[in-house]
Amino acid sequence: MSFRFQIEARDDKARAGRLFAPHGEVQTPVFMPVGTVATVKGVPQDALEELGVQILLNNTYHLYLRPGVEMVRQLGGVQKFMSWDHPILTDSGGFQVFSLSDLRKVTEEGVTFRSHLDGSSHFFSPESAIAAQIGLGADIIMAFDECTEHPAEYARTQASMEMTLRWAARSKKYFEEHKQEVPWFAERGENSQTLFGIVQGGMFPDLRRESAQRTVELDFPGYAIGGLSVGEPRPMTHEMVNAAIRFLPEDKPRYLMGVGTPEEIVHYVAQGVDMMDCVLPTRAARHGLLFTSEGRITIKNARYASDDSPLDPNCGCKVCARYSRAYLRHLYASNELLAQVLNTIHNLAYYLDTMRRVREQIRARTFATRT
Amino acid sequence: MSFRFQIEARDDKARAGRLFAPHGEVQTPVFMPVGTVATVKGVPQDALEELGVQILLNNTYHLYLRPGVEMVRQLGGVQKFMSWDHPILTDSGGFQVFSLSDLRKVTEEGVTFRSHLDGSSHFFSPESAIAAQIGLGADIIMAFDECTEHPAEYARTQASMEMTLRWAARSKKYFEEHKQEVPWFAERGENSQTLFGIVQGGMFPDLRRESAQRTVELDFPGYAIGGLSVGEPRPMTHEMVNAAIRFLPEDKPRYLMGVGTPEEIVHYVAQGVDMMDCVLPTRAARHGLLFTSEGRITIKNARYASDDSPLDPNCGCKVCARYSRAYLRHLYASNELLAQVLNTIHNLAYYLDTMRRVREQIRARTFATRT
Repeated sequence: MSFRFQIEARDDKARAGRLFAPHGEVQTPVFMPVGTVATVKGVPQDALEELGVQILLNNTYHLYLRPGVEMVRQLGGVQKFMSWDHPILTDSGGFQVFSLSDLRKVTEEGVTFRSHLDGSSHFFSPESAIAAQIGLGADIIMAFDECTEHPAEYARTQASMEMTLRWAARSKKYFEEHKQEVPWFAERGENSQTLFGIVQGGMFPDLRRESAQRTVELDFPGYAIGGLSVGEPRPMTHEMVNAAIRFLPEDKPRYLMGVGTPEEIVHYVAQGVDMMDCVLPTRAARHGLLFTSEGRITIKNARYASDDSPLDPNCGCKVCARYSRAYLRHLYASNELLAQVLNTIHNLAYYLDTMRRVREQIRARTFATRT
Repeated sequence: MSFRFQIEARDDKARAGRLFAPHGEVQTPVFMPVGTVATVKGVPQDALEELGVQILLNNTYHLYLRPGVEMVRQLGGVQKFMSWDHPILTDSGGFQVFSLSDLRKVTEEGVTFRSHLDGSSHFFSPESAIAAQIGLGADIIMAFDECTEHPAEYARTQASMEMTLRWAARSKKYFEEHKQEVPWFAERGENSQTLFGIVQGGMFPDLRRESAQRTVELDFPGYAIGGLSVGEPRPMTHEMVNAAIRFLPEDKPRYLMGVGTPEEIVHYVAQGVDMMDCVLPTRAARHGLLFTSEGRITIKNARYASDDSPLDPNCGCKVCARYSRAYLRHLYASNELLAQVLNTIHNLAYYLDTMRRVREQIRARTFATRT
């Protein structure tokens, strides 16, 4: 299937539609669970399908280090590797290089960094990051960007944004010239992968606007807003999203990277965002923080030890249908693997149900009045 | 359903039949996965049902320490607590007290020990161990025994065996007098729990025989052979099973505790064993040791890194149906939770398939000629 995005309903600034990718169709707005190293920690792929996960995010940085791009390419690409015959998006590696690795040096050419696994030295340029993503073979891939640190001065943020723009152009050029260099290209054809650009600009509205406008001039099939949720207060995140999104084309998908809480993802949909990803539901689950229709639950709390009610009485997931809070509390307090498995399944169900409801409300034109 | 055991086919010494317990029917011979603290580590209960698990073993020692017997009783018993509406067997706590805890003192009265969790001091007597198992509410519970250490001298082993016999009588007496002291007794009735005796006798055939004969004189609805797989060479295990089992009644279920490899469980069925449990498939899985029809696989081995074939081409489990060795190797090498989940599901499938085949062969009278 060739890449295509269509908006099918609007409610104020919110949009509902469909994204067609080589490995399937995605109903938007969509939340993409994070499957860092080609696995959503603890959850088998059939359980993800049961939950209605439509598209996963994998981290290029992690897969590049382990098992390595060449291995994934040999094994038929990341979808085949992890047995997930649905769309996948890979990030550019930029955010992880800046946040996880022992960063050595950033130059116009690219970034030298040390692996967080074994300290070995590596280099990512726009070209090599795109080469890695071509080899991994995800449906949607991302331009290589510099994720500006927070806080940062205006001049520094501007210079960083300018470099990200140059890197976006190099990313696009490399992608166009090399996207066919995969064994499965003949089978999947011209649109087997789609490259999105990324808007930066730190915490300055005018730089966000400029970054959006000049990234759009480079002409990508979709646009991400990056460099947010990096420690800034939430109202500032909202302001930056708003500053950028109004300059992104109406007819292209808009992807807000690395956000947020259940309340926030609804808010961003209201601002016109179509795609989001976040480690929050999965990471919080592993730490026993559970999202429910009645608020957040810290499952290790002793008050749940004898509570035989379901985690969330309004949730239809298989965890809430079968297990009590007392059992989930026991598993967590006993440091049992199953705690992480079941907690993750529930939190993902909560996020996916939230987005399902939001899509229905947009189509019914009842969304904008609620948010 | 009241407890009942019926043998429906014999092939030489092997028997196939059915065990009727309050929470359901069990086809024998049966392998019982170990769900130590009311969870088979990493595997959700619906996946256990998909695998065809008929009956689980839970450890009294662990549940007594966490979440505590009174909590499980309040929550309706261990089946309700863990949402497993099928039979459960609890062990007596004896083996764990001797192997896991910091053992303080063994007297005729019972055992003082310190918790492996927090060092707190506890006391198990035949009476208190049975009281704990009544409160947990498993379908089948075990007499409190002393698991004789290995190696042990004859006189020491004999004295230990004698004490286990006295403890068996005390266990039975306490059980008969107190089994009705649970909230669900009225609903489940007279046979809501069934107490099995345990044969000890260390590595001495005449003590094994004497222990078997005198345990049978105490008249239990089923008999276990305990105190094996404690470090002795395998031929000695076989000899001890053989020395004991010939003195157990033909019409009662025989449960060999804590064994074994897939080859061994088939061997013990051939000796007339009906029930077995072992941590091997689940523990080995978590350490990346996988049982397959083509032999054992250490999945971390680099040779599997690019192997896109299924773990076991002859296995129908959902892991072998979906994932490659390369992916399972990657998950294990990356220390991912999903490695433990998927490896455990496969190893359990291998054990359960082995037992399913064995039951079919016994019923077809083709088992004895193969073993």
